[in-house]
Amino acid sequence: MRKFLLIAIGCIVCGLETKAQVPALERVEPMFWWTGMSNPKLQLIVHGRNIAAKSVQLVYPGVKLTAVHKVENPNYLFLDLQIFSSARPGTFPIKFIQPGEKDLVYNYSLKERSHAANRAQGVTSKDFIYLLMPDRFSNGDPSNDDVAGMRERGIHRDSMFSRHGGDIKGLMNHLSYLKDLGVTAVWMTPEIENDEPAASYHGYAVTDYYKIDPRYGTNELYKQYVEACHRLGLKVIKDLVHNHIGTESYLIRDMPMKSWVHQWPKYTNSNFRDMVVMDPHASAKDRKIMLDGWFDKRMADLNENNPYVQNYLTQNHIWWVEYAGIDGFRLDTYPYNDPDYMAKWAQDVQREFPKLSIYGETLVWSAANQAFFLGGNVVNRGLDTHLPGVTDAVVKDAIYEALNGKEGWTDGVNRIYAVLAQDFLYKDPTKNVIFLDNHDMSRFYSMVNEDMAKYKSGLALLLTLRGIPQMYYGDEILMKNFSNPDGLVREDFPGGWPGDKDNKFTADGRSKKENEAFNYLRTLANYRKNTPALQTGKLMQFIPRDGVYVYFRYDQQKTVMVVYNSRDKEQTLATDYYAERINNSNQAKDIFSTQTIDIKKLLVPAKTTLILELIPAK
Amino acid sequence: MRKFLLIAIGCIVCGLETKAQVPALERVEPMFWWTGMSNPKLQLIVHGRNIAAKSVQLVYPGVKLTAVHKVENPNYLFLDLQIFSSARPGTFPIKFIQPGEKDLVYNYSLKERSHAANRAQGVTSKDFIYLLMPDRFSNGDPSNDDVAGMRERGIHRDSMFSRHGGDIKGLMNHLSYLKDLGVTAVWMTPEIENDEPAASYHGYAVTDYYKIDPRYGTNELYKQYVEACHRLGLKVIKDLVHNHIGTESYLIRDMPMKSWVHQWPKYTNSNFRDMVVMDPHASAKDRKIMLDGWFDKRMADLNENNPYVQNYLTQNHIWWVEYAGIDGFRLDTYPYNDPDYMAKWAQDVQREFPKLSIYGETLVWSAANQAFFLGGNVVNRGLDTHLPGVTDAVVKDAIYEALNGKEGWTDGVNRIYAVLAQDFLYKDPTKNVIFLDNHDMSRFYSMVNEDMAKYKSGLALLLTLRGIPQMYYGDEILMKNFSNPDGLVREDFPGGWPGDKDNKFTADGRSKKENEAFNYLRTLANYRKNTPALQTGKLMQFIPRDGVYVYFRYDQQKTVMVVYNSRDKEQTLATDYYAERINNSNQAKDIFSTQTIDIKKLLVPAKTTLILELIPAK
Repeated sequence: MRKFLLIAIGCIVCGLETKAQVPALERVEPMFWWTGMSNPKLQLIVHGRNIAAKSVQLVYPGVKLTAVHKVENPNYLFLDLQIFSSARPGTFPIKFIQPGEKDLVYNYSLKERSHAANRAQGVTSKDFIYLLMPDRFSNGDPSNDDVAGMRERGIHRDSMFSRHGGDIKGLMNHLSYLKDLGVTAVWMTPEIENDEPAASYHGYAVTDYYKIDPRYGTNELYKQYVEACHRLGLKVIKDLVHNHIGTESYLIRDMPMKSWVHQWPKYTNSNFRDMVVMDPHASAKDRKIMLDGWFDKRMADLNENNPYVQNYLTQNHIWWVEYAGIDGFRLDTYPYNDPDYMAKWAQDVQREFPKLSIYGETLVWSAANQAFFLGGNVVNRGLDTHLPGVTDAVVKDAIYEALNGKEGWTDGVNRIYAVLAQDFLYKDPTKNVIFLDNHDMSRFYSMVNEDMAKYKSGLALLLTLRGIPQMYYGDEILMKNFSNPDGLVREDFPGGWPGDKDNKFTADGRSKKENEAFNYLRTLANYRKNTPALQTGKLMQFIPRDGVYVYFRYDQQKTVMVVYNSRDKEQTLATDYYAERINNSNQAKDIFSTQTIDIKKLLVPAKTTLILELIPAK
Repeated sequence: MRKFLLIAIGCIVCGLETKAQVPALERVEPMFWWTGMSNPKLQLIVHGRNIAAKSVQLVYPGVKLTAVHKVENPNYLFLDLQIFSSARPGTFPIKFIQPGEKDLVYNYSLKERSHAANRAQGVTSKDFIYLLMPDRFSNGDPSNDDVAGMRERGIHRDSMFSRHGGDIKGLMNHLSYLKDLGVTAVWMTPEIENDEPAASYHGYAVTDYYKIDPRYGTNELYKQYVEACHRLGLKVIKDLVHNHIGTESYLIRDMPMKSWVHQWPKYTNSNFRDMVVMDPHASAKDRKIMLDGWFDKRMADLNENNPYVQNYLTQNHIWWVEYAGIDGFRLDTYPYNDPDYMAKWAQDVQREFPKLSIYGETLVWSAANQAFFLGGNVVNRGLDTHLPGVTDAVVKDAIYEALNGKEGWTDGVNRIYAVLAQDFLYKDPTKNVIFLDNHDMSRFYSMVNEDMAKYKSGLALLLTLRGIPQMYYGDEILMKNFSNPDGLVREDFPGGWPGDKDNKFTADGRSKKENEAFNYLRTLANYRKNTPALQTGKLMQFIPRDGVYVYFRYDQQKTVMVVYNSRDKEQTLATDYYAERINNSNQAKDIFSTQTIDIKKLLVPAKTTLILELIPAK
């Protein structure tokens, strides 16, 4: 998530005083849990009016209440439970007792962990991710467009900062569209409750960590959505926000303790400088402002040093995976988080779900800066973050430089070579998510000046380079716009709403040019889906020559040769230089035309990328 | 050394066939050696007409001839000696015997290692390096301007690619000038023999590894020069070329073996792409061309995998240190060398001279690329290069960006912050040599468009940031020119030649503006020389604010605050943000005006850098 789009949101509430009248027993979170978890410990947060005045009673075989913590705010208790391996699934009462008052009872359930297939299966370089904003993709259930009791009411499709009505049902209606396109994983921007008075659609100001936003659907529907994806062979990524919390959350409106969030004498924004986190020469002051400053006045900076906060977040994330079967996590604003906590978090999550994927958002300056945040200590951090992958904005910038830049020693097409050469900085660069745009950025088609040849070349690079490719909804139908405060990079997908003039989910609803784009991407994505060499094969790249960048993806079965001519004129490429990988092949299949061509000399049109599957010599 | 200046040299000889009539016993190298070296092994190269037909006899207590190697060319023998710790200094005959012919005898000496002070003492961040080209600094001995028997004759000061007559004697005449300026170490471009027919002045096409070029002086004079430097408290750096060898060397004209250099079916230039060395995806072809391709047709690419070549180079470098007492090595074209050999070389040299400094020339793209070549495996290379430092061109580019660039997130003055934040990539960034220009680059004063404020700010940054600062001769008198094929960045130092119109070694010979520059640098360099905080103190930097970059160098004794206003207008800086380092100081001494000023609010003129020594609060 980036700052600029939030500026338009404005600021209404900054104070942190208690604003709510709290019921006798408002919440226990996690609402339920499971037997058989790797970590036997569980910490329940209990929120209720003056609950700290009560004693707690819990009796269940295999479960022990090991501690009851009172904190600053008497409306909270934190209960430490130990769940032994002997505990069986079942339900038991937790009683809150005070002499002279009626007992309060919460019936707590321990469920059996699911052993169904395709749960928490990980999103890998075999996948192709489709990113969408649930409010802007499709409105499948108009009955939840306006939800009574929420601070922002109704939908206003003419305003980019209001809600538009998209929801999980809408997305579920189009899963077969995504599958047909060749997508294998869906990443939604946060779908949990953001009950903020304005701009709640973006999802990064969470107000209820355990509840799907009612404008999108219900927890049960979300679970059904994940199951529907899995049935279709699609994977699901959940977008997590560790760094901040919506100021309308009950945890802010009636804070357990002042140290739940970072407090400042007066409102202090983060300086948004990831560099101070890595800088061995940084001042404590700059570093504190980076890590503890607020992302926005509507997004309080969580104090991730607070062990209650740590337990709360980690358990919530584990809860969602076990509840719904999610396959991967995208971590918002990764560099802004407390490094020690994030390292512990990653280990805790991976202990429960070893195959689950995790990638952190790092919109930073260079590959080295990305590598700093990654696990495995390939660069010197003195802390293993255990983070497997990042959103690789450096590769994105390199692809744009190759498409739009002026050729130079490390400029133009040579930038891609230079950036991938720096893969020595990573433990495993194939775990990075590569992309051309997202909800915080100018759209790809606009960034290449609506040039169809560049558009195709960019997608060809995206789907054949190393890493996990990710696209942004609407790229396939040439949706446009630049990342300006107008928010137009988050327009609705045409056809996603009942009564939409055009329906671009269908070929008939798309223009000729849109179909050209759609079909190109569909061919490419489906070819990749069926070609392990492009997913997990090795990469060999050659120094660009005369503006032509040549690389290979290969495994035991296949060798795919990719040839990108970055220049404005057609060129003939003598391929003998690449004998190391071509071996004795004389012919190849062009994956778009499916025709067999001779490859001794290759004619490469201007700004075009050829993808050629080599035909081994007889 | 960079490619472009060599283009003008042209190419005369590329073939490698024997061209010389070889005397019966032309050479034994190293000509002599020492007792008491850490490494007991020594390999002598013997060159003489059909010497391989002879047997070898050597008898000396504590010395054993362990092997005699015949190689492809019968004009060579390689003798392996073991020198035991029992060996005493002395001279002994090595006899080359062939029945029916007169014995050939070489009287080999083992000398005692010198234990004099200030030898091989290392050049560190306490120092300030002055780089010069010996042909272009001062002509102290006109009698060696034209040396009979050499391929390039006479001097032609009107041609930038001819010899101009500068020499070691000339440099020795101006050591007190350098000392006065505040310099503490001298780095000459290579001063050993380059008996090439054209452009021999540049020094990177070595033809005799054991001989000071006669146009510069003699081995004995070089030794005297080092001793003179040491007496004055100056250190000496020697410039080594591992990668290539002048094609007029006896080792090329009558090669020991074909594999002495990298052979190609037809002449093949290096691709000059350091990136393929680090690229995990590189092709073997690109990598071979990078490492084994020739730097120039006049510079054969040494095969550093060849153990004879390895011994030859390593012993030669050790020889020079023990012979002359040199304090540090600068390694030319570091990335072009064989990585495994260079790692072994560094260890072998450091074993003999633990304090000796070493820094490699790496004109590469980014800090990560620099770090790749450095020792200590802070980034993932899988090979510890044991290289302590590099020529830090990334800091240079950052300083230029700060002086000339347009302010942006990581542009303009923010670039310096961003680059130094990447110091986490290094084991010890203070071992990097930082600089603003050298003999392969546009001169600093031209690069700042002859703007005196920028000139001063650049020097102020250079001498107060971390690392070992290095300047290029003539920067102190505002010498100009851009790095073009005209070679004008290598002009003669005015006053260095008898009869020069101006003598800029003296205040009288300098213009008012030149004296302003000279005096600024002298004040700065001498302040640094007397201020350990600037040499070895810690660095703390703050994120630039409003285009003003503030950092501190500090130790137990002193805190120096540096304030660079990159903007075109004067600014007033509130210093309370920097309380972390200012503590309670209210005043500071401006090191240029020596006046005491209040620092609560600082007036910083446009484009100006203040260097303020804080006065502790009472």
